[in-house]
Amino acid sequence: MNDSKFWSEVSYQIMREVDRAVTPLVGEKEAGETVKMGADGTPTKLIDLVAEEKVVQVLEEAERPLTLVSEEIGRIDIGSGSPEVVFVVDPLDGTNNAVKNIPAYGISLAIAEVTDPDRSMTIHDIELGFVKNFATGDIYQAIQGGGASLNGQDISTSSRTDISKSSIGAYIYRADMEKVDKLCKMVRRMRILGSVAVELCYVADGTYDAFLDIRGNLRIVDVAAAKLIVEEAAGLVTDEYNQPLNSKLNVLERTSIIASGNSEVHQELIRLIGGNMI
Amino acid sequence: MNDSKFWSEVSYQIMREVDRAVTPLVGEKEAGETVKMGADGTPTKLIDLVAEEKVVQVLEEAERPLTLVSEEIGRIDIGSGSPEVVFVVDPLDGTNNAVKNIPAYGISLAIAEVTDPDRSMTIHDIELGFVKNFATGDIYQAIQGGGASLNGQDISTSSRTDISKSSIGAYIYRADMEKVDKLCKMVRRMRILGSVAVELCYVADGTYDAFLDIRGNLRIVDVAAAKLIVEEAAGLVTDEYNQPLNSKLNVLERTSIIASGNSEVHQELIRLIGGNMI
Repeated sequence: MNDSKFWSEVSYQIMREVDRAVTPLVGEKEAGETVKMGADGTPTKLIDLVAEEKVVQVLEEAERPLTLVSEEIGRIDIGSGSPEVVFVVDPLDGTNNAVKNIPAYGISLAIAEVTDPDRSMTIHDIELGFVKNFATGDIYQAIQGGGASLNGQDISTSSRTDISKSSIGAYIYRADMEKVDKLCKMVRRMRILGSVAVELCYVADGTYDAFLDIRGNLRIVDVAAAKLIVEEAAGLVTDEYNQPLNSKLNVLERTSIIASGNSEVHQELIRLIGGNMI
Repeated sequence: MNDSKFWSEVSYQIMREVDRAVTPLVGEKEAGETVKMGADGTPTKLIDLVAEEKVVQVLEEAERPLTLVSEEIGRIDIGSGSPEVVFVVDPLDGTNNAVKNIPAYGISLAIAEVTDPDRSMTIHDIELGFVKNFATGDIYQAIQGGGASLNGQDISTSSRTDISKSSIGAYIYRADMEKVDKLCKMVRRMRILGSVAVELCYVADGTYDAFLDIRGNLRIVDVAAAKLIVEEAAGLVTDEYNQPLNSKLNVLERTSIIASGNSEVHQELIRLIGGNMI
């Protein structure tokens, strides 16, 4: 993409400034108070609003025309003229963890270049992705075709293929329990930290062997950056039916996700949850 | 108990020194290499051994007779003369998290005074409990009859009674899925961070509304300190059948655990998993 260096610098500034704005609120009761309803139809908490306002402020200061797609605000154009890029942002992924001071929450930033203003863009158009875990300071990033990194060091996914020895992030509550029954019996370790963006990055760097959320209510703002990071780290990302994610760049569409370190684990997961039965 | 101040100081020294010994190994591959089999029948990793050796060293330097019950070493007497206390220790709870740099791992230290050397002691005899999350530096502690604290501030459990709005830590993989089916459908948020000691303390300070592990393979070293901390914070702790834990102070006995912020949630959890059907 054009100007990837410029947009990376803007992204780093956003990560730095949102971190600074959010951190004093972590673990504070007021942080969790509902202040309005978000554009995605879920309640906006004070800490979400503080985070998103900082994103908007930094993007306005960039003085370049762009579209922002974000959890609370929905979709807005910033600057004058035809948007050069679309920023797909979850200003604070893992809000409840931040409110409770459970150390897994952060920002997800994904950027797509607008090459044809008349074409409807999807998650495939994302070319830059950043996830920062504010609780640890870790920054994951990827550029399409250029690999993925954690704090500047190249990362790659797990090569473990045996599910019975694997560590898997798995959002199985409020899901169809029949689908996850076999998986729960087989997996070596299961984790649910409460930040999908951070946990998808755990697949990218091999901390997890795989991750799945088959509740079917993930939004593109949650997964757009981390999907690119996993894929650039040589991992696989599909929905629960082994189909490519194809969400449009808005906050309303919902999806399931399975991310794996390698295709053997991916196929086995799809098989265990019955996703190849359709 | 006699000398609770002295034994608290010893415990603080252990927490400080184990933290210092473990931290350089966090996220390192060698930390996770199996070096031998532990007394509890599970493999001992390098980072476990480093942690336990530091515990033994500090206890030897205390120059008082005592018994140590610990995950890898089993049960040993330290110092000469009749043991004054029993230290029940998990030197590193959440080993896999420490190896992978997932920020939830720490030490659990529980202390019981030996009043009658001929009497078989159980978890009810624990009078002091400490849990330190090395990833965050947080220290939870409790003294029997004296309340519980986090970093010196008094803590108490959640008063939330509605399961459908609750956040629950729940080890449900490799468990009997029939038992957890209803719970998984009802709970608002489920977490599995990978450190039972730390997550039980999350019940004590209201971060979680409840916690359960019904796989039936928890050891007393995992739960001895946190059980006291939850109870001193006004929470409830039983096994999955609503019976008091009564494990002896050794590393071989296994148990299930349910810890709740209040009795309404506790009874509802027991009901949901069918624990009142026996």
